[in-house]
Amino acid sequence: MINLKNDYNTIGDKKILNELLKYSDEKYIGYGEDIKTKELNTLVNNICNKEVDTYVLAGGTLSNVIGLNQMLRYPYEAVITVESSHINVHETGAIEATGHKIIYTPNILGKIDISKIKDTFYKYQDNHMVMPKALYLANATELGEVYTLEELKEISKICKELNLYFFIDGARLPQALASANYKLSDVAALCDMFYLGGTKLGLPYGELLIIVNEELKKNFKYLIKNRLGMLAKGFVGAIMFLAFIKDDYYLSLAKKSIDLANIIREELNDYLIYPNTTNQVFIKINNNDINKLKEKIEFEVWENTNSYTVIRLVTSINTTKEEIDECVKIIKNL
Amino acid sequence: MINLKNDYNTIGDKKILNELLKYSDEKYIGYGEDIKTKELNTLVNNICNKEVDTYVLAGGTLSNVIGLNQMLRYPYEAVITVESSHINVHETGAIEATGHKIIYTPNILGKIDISKIKDTFYKYQDNHMVMPKALYLANATELGEVYTLEELKEISKICKELNLYFFIDGARLPQALASANYKLSDVAALCDMFYLGGTKLGLPYGELLIIVNEELKKNFKYLIKNRLGMLAKGFVGAIMFLAFIKDDYYLSLAKKSIDLANIIREELNDYLIYPNTTNQVFIKINNNDINKLKEKIEFEVWENTNSYTVIRLVTSINTTKEEIDECVKIIKNL
Amino acid sequence: MINLKNDYNTIGDKKILNELLKYSDEKYIGYGEDIKTKELNTLVNNICNKEVDTYVLAGGTLSNVIGLNQMLRYPYEAVITVESSHINVHETGAIEATGHKIIYTPNILGKIDISKIKDTFYKYQDNHMVMPKALYLANATELGEVYTLEELKEISKICKELNLYFFIDGARLPQALASANYKLSDVAALCDMFYLGGTKLGLPYGELLIIVNEELKKNFKYLIKNRLGMLAKGFVGAIMFLAFIKDDYYLSLAKKSIDLANIIREELNDYLIYPNTTNQVFIKINNNDINKLKEKIEFEVWENTNSYTVIRLVTSINTTKEEIDECVKIIKNL
Amino acid sequence: MINLKNDYNTIGDKKILNELLKYSDEKYIGYGEDIKTKELNTLVNNICNKEVDTYVLAGGTLSNVIGLNQMLRYPYEAVITVESSHINVHETGAIEATGHKIIYTPNILGKIDISKIKDTFYKYQDNHMVMPKALYLANATELGEVYTLEELKEISKICKELNLYFFIDGARLPQALASANYKLSDVAALCDMFYLGGTKLGLPYGELLIIVNEELKKNFKYLIKNRLGMLAKGFVGAIMFLAFIKDDYYLSLAKKSIDLANIIREELNDYLIYPNTTNQVFIKINNNDINKLKEKIEFEVWENTNSYTVIRLVTSINTTKEEIDECVKIIKNL
Repeated sequence: MINLKNDYNTIGDKKILNELLKYSDEKYIGYGEDIKTKELNTLVNNICNKEVDTYVLAGGTLSNVIGLNQMLRYPYEAVITVESSHINVHETGAIEATGHKIIYTPNILGKIDISKIKDTFYKYQDNHMVMPKALYLANATELGEVYTLEELKEISKICKELNLYFFIDGARLPQALASANYKLSDVAALCDMFYLGGTKLGLPYGELLIIVNEELKKNFKYLIKNRLGMLAKGFVGAIMFLAFIKDDYYLSLAKKSIDLANIIREELNDYLIYPNTTNQVFIKINNNDINKLKEKIEFEVWENTNSYTVIRLVTSINTTKEEIDECVKIIKNL
Repeated sequence: MINLKNDYNTIGDKKILNELLKYSDEKYIGYGEDIKTKELNTLVNNICNKEVDTYVLAGGTLSNVIGLNQMLRYPYEAVITVESSHINVHETGAIEATGHKIIYTPNILGKIDISKIKDTFYKYQDNHMVMPKALYLANATELGEVYTLEELKEISKICKELNLYFFIDGARLPQALASANYKLSDVAALCDMFYLGGTKLGLPYGELLIIVNEELKKNFKYLIKNRLGMLAKGFVGAIMFLAFIKDDYYLSLAKKSIDLANIIREELNDYLIYPNTTNQVFIKINNNDINKLKEKIEFEVWENTNSYTVIRLVTSINTTKEEIDECVKIIKNL
Repeated sequence: MINLKNDYNTIGDKKILNELLKYSDEKYIGYGEDIKTKELNTLVNNICNKEVDTYVLAGGTLSNVIGLNQMLRYPYEAVITVESSHINVHETGAIEATGHKIIYTPNILGKIDISKIKDTFYKYQDNHMVMPKALYLANATELGEVYTLEELKEISKICKELNLYFFIDGARLPQALASANYKLSDVAALCDMFYLGGTKLGLPYGELLIIVNEELKKNFKYLIKNRLGMLAKGFVGAIMFLAFIKDDYYLSLAKKSIDLANIIREELNDYLIYPNTTNQVFIKINNNDINKLKEKIEFEVWENTNSYTVIRLVTSINTTKEEIDECVKIIKNL
Repeated sequence: MINLKNDYNTIGDKKILNELLKYSDEKYIGYGEDIKTKELNTLVNNICNKEVDTYVLAGGTLSNVIGLNQMLRYPYEAVITVESSHINVHETGAIEATGHKIIYTPNILGKIDISKIKDTFYKYQDNHMVMPKALYLANATELGEVYTLEELKEISKICKELNLYFFIDGARLPQALASANYKLSDVAALCDMFYLGGTKLGLPYGELLIIVNEELKKNFKYLIKNRLGMLAKGFVGAIMFLAFIKDDYYLSLAKKSIDLANIIREELNDYLIYPNTTNQVFIKINNNDINKLKEKIEFEVWENTNSYTVIRLVTSINTTKEEIDECVKIIKNL
């Protein structure tokens, strides 16, 4: 059975797991006041060429909610995003549970339609309606697409003009950066807060939240603790992220999985439905073939129509070339 | 420098960390639907001699809040506890942030004064006041004390009579069980929900939440996700807790640290202020000696008075006999 | 200047206001425990031919939020409604501020598209998504339309099948009933909770919330107090609603305003854009004529297009036949 | 039967109720954008000798919660008050329901012990604890006591020093002002936000919330709407408060009820337990006499001891001299 169901199906990259053993005799201060956490912050400052604040949080939903909570102070303040966003569809109402509304803006295949942001914003104009205060997007998106640097610049400019905080969900930012022509520092230069995902690329848990905007730095640990995201052993995450980031190790991990995804895209070009450049491949399969396929490959069903099924194949840190070749063969032979 | 500051100052026990490497080539289903999570549930069922539900959550505050949220449905429902409780003092208002009030009941050295629970409950009688719906205690307490089985039975009985859910914070339940004459199954028999702490005893993160009461099992994963506690790689926690629990490994870890704490208690008997039987030792030090002590030992200052300072010494999984002997010598020689 | 801006632009109906003076020497128990509140409940029981619970709340948003809060217990539980709903658009995120998500279902001119409810419901199937638990509609709708008895029956049946609570916002239910062929008791027979609006028909404030479903009656006053809706002088609202309801006085008030709206609809039939049978009239005006019209009539602009503007004219308890005739003349002469 | 149970047991003062009829033919803009609301604001500006913002809210709990919500932005921000405070004891957890913790500071007979405020504040010093951000007191207190001007000045100074917002619950501020040697403008000069209660002195509903601190004025209507306090017919409250405030009418109403309370205090001096200068009288009655007394007077039981019962007698706008004389006679004859 070939498992291409998702990119969080293994414990993690061996090199990173070994770091935990390597430092297991050391003693550290708790709650992120330790030396490794500081070292990580310094490293990220250098990479981003900026004084940022960094926090390791356990997962993506935590990062999205606590990050946006730092931006949305009053309960009438809302976040703008596309309807298909993770925060809107797949977080069991976690944003609303902290008291804030999500406003939809039109999308083009899952990406924000940049030309419509202002229209969306200006619909909210009086005190009977919520007040837009932040804009959220995921890069890569749910469909694996990557925003271009030009798009990010344009969105950043619009946010500044509208006085909206700009938040980037980076659960798959490593995969985006590995397939785009811009860098972590470019992202840091354009948004107010973002994160670099570890869970979907070789860490047992952990997203690295990066606060760029000075206004948003204050008292953030109070909010992390209050919103249930504080980890007693902050140093564990820091040690893992140090290994993850140093010498762009995360980019090499991401590239490896993307290279394999590219093989599928090339070989199964005719089946592609939502083309992208990252580690997720969306293809169309005849409804009749689905059950046969399920016997040989584990994948996620993305969408059903009368004539075909869209399935998602995801490569991860321990997907092998052999598995991909076999997968391609199976599908071609259906 | 001898570090006796707390019991969460190291990454974790090597045997448990090695489990992560051991299984790092395997692939699992996400979000706690995997085989290891099921195996863990079965193991706990056998130990508790009951059909319980089990969930690994990242930390104690998460476990307290999400657990109590399952018990407190309407925003006017409140939890009774002692004023010094972790949920009241050291969670940055996390319970209130989810909409619920904490009601104080009198304590005796940090333990609930059992004779006063009903009085506290009956003060809340009309719709201008909150409605008590759960009782929370920590075992061991913040002062390291352990409830006797008789005390737990009495509290359990009162809760049933008052229709209160009974929640036990078990961040240091391993240490309590290692020094008491009752077992995990006794705890499971007496309360509605509790957890077995891993963070303070050899895990890089993780508390094992155990739901005993059938009424509280329904839809709990919705709440975990909604309240930011869902981990994509649920299997990581399951693998660690399997090693932690199997053959009472956690009890042996706890006993080791308690044995060392007992040495301090015996040797420094005259200094003891809040005696207990677990891995925390509270002693009085002359104010004049504190700075000298700080040069040689890392500890937490618990309380200041005009004449003396109460300090807390905590033994953990990698505290050594040598460190304890040296610590005792230093204090005696002050 | 003719004021047709809305139906809450006057203090209230004189007959009802006089009740306040009439009883101003009496003394009553506070917080809705008084004799007038009981009398009102009995009267509503008789009218509905059912044992219901009744509460006077100060406004529509309060009634919507507290009512739905009684239905939605856990923060992952959500309410289904159409995108244009008052709770979604015009309550400044009040539902979300209490922790719950609003799910959109397709509409037909503002009414719920009944054929799509099940599709909407069945999209929410796992614990990564919210759980639909209630369905909300307004009758009359924001566009003044009235659900037929057959439609309400069908929706009621679907809600029962899907285990959804059925909530009816009745801010303009008097106007709906005054123009439909069914009665208050029919509404009570089909939904779980609803209200009869007073603010938009002759009361200085007040909506009469009616709880039909036994499950939803318990401890509701706790929730009212907790969610800021408890009025110390509950008897004031009860006295007003007694006069409002007795001998269908509210229906006569509603009919009067609808008769005047009907005159506009007949006379300006060609201008009508969203026809309905209640006290709101939506007509198209040439963009060029809008400013001229504003000098003579106060109205609300509903929608702008390149070629025309949709305006809303609303008749209320003290709109006169003369004003309506004049209004018609002004518009015809534009 | 003499009713001295509370001061919100009648619909309202006739002069004020008549205002509603007087203006019932007028038409106004909704949601507090009307001319009467502006007129009220101007009047209060003149009285306070300051540019303040004014809002009529329906009740005290609404005013406390929405007012404090404007001060407490992040969920880890808390309010300091005495344990017996209305927000802590008698609002069914409404503050916590909006996400904030209440911190207790020591009291002297229900008033804040001014000498302890700083100690309380400085206990909260790290991100594991909530952050105090506002101080709340009621004037008059729950026991009817009035803060002196000197006390208010001292508290105000401490709040500024500690960077705490200072909020005054004025549900019985009219009664406080009527028996103190300072004025509304003095209160406005010392705190950041407060209100002048109408419900307990002749209005069918309504508290006049006054925002003094410029920082707290922004977007307050968004919060009112979001937290369920917006009234469609804002002009109704404004019309009532104009009559209430003009020519200190409210002070004359308050004085009348206090004069009657003073008669009880003088005549029953030996029975007094919590002496104060407002319209609430707290006296001790032998437990044996309580039932007899209940046959003739309606009152509230405040406290029970083995030997005596504390009862509360409250005078209100339509208490008469005859009733008070009779009441005194009954008690003396027990």
